[in-house]
Amino acid sequence: MKSQITNALSDFFFEYETPRQVLVRNRRVGVVCRLIQLGVLAYIIGWVFIYEKGYQSSDTAVSSVFSKMKGVGYTNVTGTERIWDVADYVFPPQGDSSFVVMTNYIITEGQKMGNCPELPGKHNCSSDADCEGGSFKRTGHGQMTGKCVNTTKTCEVLAWCPVEDDNNIPDPPLLMSAENYTLFIKNSVTFPLFEVTRSNLVEGIDNNYISKCLYDQEDSPLCPIFKLGDIVKMSGFNFETIAKVGGAIGIVIDWTCNLDFNVKHCKPMYNFHGLYGNPDEKDKARASVGYNFRFAKHYMEDKVQQRTLLKVFGIRIDIIVQSLARKFDIIPTLTAIGSGVGIFGVATVVCDLVLLYLLPKREFYKNMKFKYTDTQTQDPDSEAGSTETEVSKK
Amino acid sequence: MKSQITNALSDFFFEYETPRQVLVRNRRVGVVCRLIQLGVLAYIIGWVFIYEKGYQSSDTAVSSVFSKMKGVGYTNVTGTERIWDVADYVFPPQGDSSFVVMTNYIITEGQKMGNCPELPGKHNCSSDADCEGGSFKRTGHGQMTGKCVNTTKTCEVLAWCPVEDDNNIPDPPLLMSAENYTLFIKNSVTFPLFEVTRSNLVEGIDNNYISKCLYDQEDSPLCPIFKLGDIVKMSGFNFETIAKVGGAIGIVIDWTCNLDFNVKHCKPMYNFHGLYGNPDEKDKARASVGYNFRFAKHYMEDKVQQRTLLKVFGIRIDIIVQSLARKFDIIPTLTAIGSGVGIFGVATVVCDLVLLYLLPKREFYKNMKFKYTDTQTQDPDSEAGSTETEVSKK
Amino acid sequence: MKSQITNALSDFFFEYETPRQVLVRNRRVGVVCRLIQLGVLAYIIGWVFIYEKGYQSSDTAVSSVFSKMKGVGYTNVTGTERIWDVADYVFPPQGDSSFVVMTNYIITEGQKMGNCPELPGKHNCSSDADCEGGSFKRTGHGQMTGKCVNTTKTCEVLAWCPVEDDNNIPDPPLLMSAENYTLFIKNSVTFPLFEVTRSNLVEGIDNNYISKCLYDQEDSPLCPIFKLGDIVKMSGFNFETIAKVGGAIGIVIDWTCNLDFNVKHCKPMYNFHGLYGNPDEKDKARASVGYNFRFAKHYMEDKVQQRTLLKVFGIRIDIIVQSLARKFDIIPTLTAIGSGVGIFGVATVVCDLVLLYLLPKREFYKNMKFKYTDTQTQDPDSEAGSTETEVSKK
Repeated sequence: MKSQITNALSDFFFEYETPRQVLVRNRRVGVVCRLIQLGVLAYIIGWVFIYEKGYQSSDTAVSSVFSKMKGVGYTNVTGTERIWDVADYVFPPQGDSSFVVMTNYIITEGQKMGNCPELPGKHNCSSDADCEGGSFKRTGHGQMTGKCVNTTKTCEVLAWCPVEDDNNIPDPPLLMSAENYTLFIKNSVTFPLFEVTRSNLVEGIDNNYISKCLYDQEDSPLCPIFKLGDIVKMSGFNFETIAKVGGAIGIVIDWTCNLDFNVKHCKPMYNFHGLYGNPDEKDKARASVGYNFRFAKHYMEDKVQQRTLLKVFGIRIDIIVQSLARKFDIIPTLTAIGSGVGIFGVATVVCDLVLLYLLPKREFYKNMKFKYTDTQTQDPDSEAGSTETEVSKK
Repeated sequence: MKSQITNALSDFFFEYETPRQVLVRNRRVGVVCRLIQLGVLAYIIGWVFIYEKGYQSSDTAVSSVFSKMKGVGYTNVTGTERIWDVADYVFPPQGDSSFVVMTNYIITEGQKMGNCPELPGKHNCSSDADCEGGSFKRTGHGQMTGKCVNTTKTCEVLAWCPVEDDNNIPDPPLLMSAENYTLFIKNSVTFPLFEVTRSNLVEGIDNNYISKCLYDQEDSPLCPIFKLGDIVKMSGFNFETIAKVGGAIGIVIDWTCNLDFNVKHCKPMYNFHGLYGNPDEKDKARASVGYNFRFAKHYMEDKVQQRTLLKVFGIRIDIIVQSLARKFDIIPTLTAIGSGVGIFGVATVVCDLVLLYLLPKREFYKNMKFKYTDTQTQDPDSEAGSTETEVSKK
Repeated sequence: MKSQITNALSDFFFEYETPRQVLVRNRRVGVVCRLIQLGVLAYIIGWVFIYEKGYQSSDTAVSSVFSKMKGVGYTNVTGTERIWDVADYVFPPQGDSSFVVMTNYIITEGQKMGNCPELPGKHNCSSDADCEGGSFKRTGHGQMTGKCVNTTKTCEVLAWCPVEDDNNIPDPPLLMSAENYTLFIKNSVTFPLFEVTRSNLVEGIDNNYISKCLYDQEDSPLCPIFKLGDIVKMSGFNFETIAKVGGAIGIVIDWTCNLDFNVKHCKPMYNFHGLYGNPDEKDKARASVGYNFRFAKHYMEDKVQQRTLLKVFGIRIDIIVQSLARKFDIIPTLTAIGSGVGIFGVATVVCDLVLLYLLPKREFYKNMKFKYTDTQTQDPDSEAGSTETEVSKK
């Protein structure tokens, strides 16, 4: 017998092992086993590859958003007419992906720094003892001077005077005309892994088209111009409600792309939903209304600094980009195949269990499948015997 | 023969199965098979492990960016000289990751609320009938009063008067000096999965270095101070063009880190490119120019609220952090190995096909590999016979 | 012998192969092999499935954040008392996820456009020659007129005059009262893959609770209202230090959810840490302090445009949402199983190496395991012989 060392290499290259197998001609076991194997095959091909696209790797995008509002608002408060243009009702002005459109406001003009009584309600007092000088109240507008004003029966504070009274929110909202404002969105996404860059101004969405179109889920789902009223409706709000007390709306730009097809088919989808909803609430829309912030315009008058305080109720719009691109990749493909083969192994194991422990002829099959090595007596197999002798010959 | 039940456990622990194999001494099949196996091996080691680093798990970062502009601009419009400092030309002022640097503007001073004629052009009229009172035009500046002004032949509107005339964009841009502004970026990233936090002020980038350095792709790629002119150039724009009509530029901070090495090697890379490009356009840079927004400064004069309206053309800079950290992880490693072994199985299957269906001696090999169990006649194999008899002995 | 072609299909369905195996009754090898296999099993079940939850797929969220500050500040600079409310000290006002709370400031009132001397220090001059007309200095406030002012011995510049002198930062900070401001955070996250939306106002956090609660890591970890002083403390800063020179703090909202449990258990966790730290620094907190920006309020006085320049030192707060949801998924489960089976194969290979190359009786085992096909002489196995003859009979 040749030594293993000398021609191990030639052996290695010119011979190969293939497992010896028992070909069990048994209908029951055969069918069972084939079905299991077919099941595994169906799973791997049907589910992993076709349904879950297991042959692709995926990537999310880095993105950038620019927004621009258009439209003019009109208010008529106690006879004084006023026009609101973009510079007046959008915060911040420079077109971020998150901004607020003012739809209602409480204005407090000509505030000066000074001493004045607090609002009735939370800050009532009967005597100066109730207004500790130099201290603050969490809901107060300023620092208490320690005096209790007789006329109003409230503590006097050092604050921007007169203090804002925001108990009554204008109803109907002052800027219902906001419903007709339009929003233009520019969005570009880059999938670094696949080195693909896309803009929401996809093929065919040229300046000429943009100048005329208005977004509509059915008719023009790629038009990047939206009517504020539509956005509110599509996110399930009632415009008058949200315009009065404010609210937050998310515009989700969904880039789900299969880059195995032409990149032209990688197009955005726009979804709209209310934000900050309370999961408890039945009526999600109701839950998430209510958005406001305070904003001051400062000016000098008669050498005195003054300010106009605006409590702004508005629609806060967050433009959220959500992206997932998939493309064929050899790694996940072979990983899926490889692990699939592994699962095939499981199938065989199951069949063997049936074969060796459940069938009546299991003893017979066991003898076919296994060869024992320890002692002659336990060895059911002439071949093993012959081997033994053959070995002992050495 | 012992019963399986009694000493199943001792059996389980003291014996183990290893498949019986046919050692095919056949040069062709041997070589074919070895090459396939080597191919698989090469793929697993070379591609999965070395090239794709399949032994690592990956994570993206949560990040935070702070930006600060420096520099002074100078304009001389019809003799009146003016200086623009950071507080004047950056929107918003507080150093966000997305901000605008004003490079050109159309200023409309002393606007008051009132009635005045629209601009000639879109709003021409021949009689009051052309100007429906109380209605708005999408491109209009206010609410039409219903009058057609004879002198200008345009509709009269209630608006901020005089209305802005933005037909002529100043050329050359008023703030060409913006080219020399500098931008300082502070960026910190945290990879939660690996609990690693990095700042773009990496080792060696101390205050002393920062006070002197200026970013340069070759010489000082880690200096976090950028000249605006360089940024524009590196993103493929012509400064005068973009300064005139505005444009959007993305500064991508790329953190691609292999944390198996010392964290010191985890350094940022800065890339610059124009945003919102139209994929159709040949000239991407051209496509994505054009960025402006309106901004108003309010003030009181003679007890009348007035405002100065600025139509700002500027360079919008989005600082985008893109991150991918990789580190050794046992799971992907063993998954890769495991599925690799699976693919090995595929290799054997292929070889068997060759062996059993293509080779001339296939019948011979089939008999070597398979043992049939159903009937004596079909059994080519003495051993099976002996087994049969052995079984029948029972 | 039947032809393979005719009833290949019936063969395929009614028979199945199972590998023939040698049952090695050898305590050493047996134990070794079982231990390896048990190890693999333990790894797959214990590590992959239980510890790393390998049966789940994961997803990150798209999120939206709204913040609101409350509280009143008070300053007393050289006798003039002043109150600062939200509209005064928060930048920007509209409640973004990233904003600045002013804690200290240097105010320069009544700046007009004009010529005035630069600050002593960087811009000293002995004669006009030192001040090149029309040029700028990187650290200067404006454009040099070419004159050297005798009184101050500094260059004269065209700038907003008087130029800001920010050499002395007020200490103690003017708005120490900022410590008591409160921050309210509204955050909603959506995991698109699992179609789950959550808000940080989880079950039980109703308006009634919010009106009273204050965040505390132990007692009320779900209360979305934070005291600014606490935030600073929890992120490892000293309030007075950061209030004086400013600093940046990240509030990380961590959504790590196992959606195999009820979604009610998917709750946010709040973490606080300083940003922009220098990795070198021992004392990270020290390293990352220092944050300021300039901000101007414009107004007209006597028909002249003037402005009040504020150099704002403040606490910049970035609210960062970090999310990872996991849920059972069939794909990763079967992939893990499959590759696990693969690794099982590796175990067998290892055992075989022991069996065939290390054991004294290795020759014997080799003969048991392998069957040689090339020549009679090398064939240790009666069976092969019989096959040979059987084949030659054809």
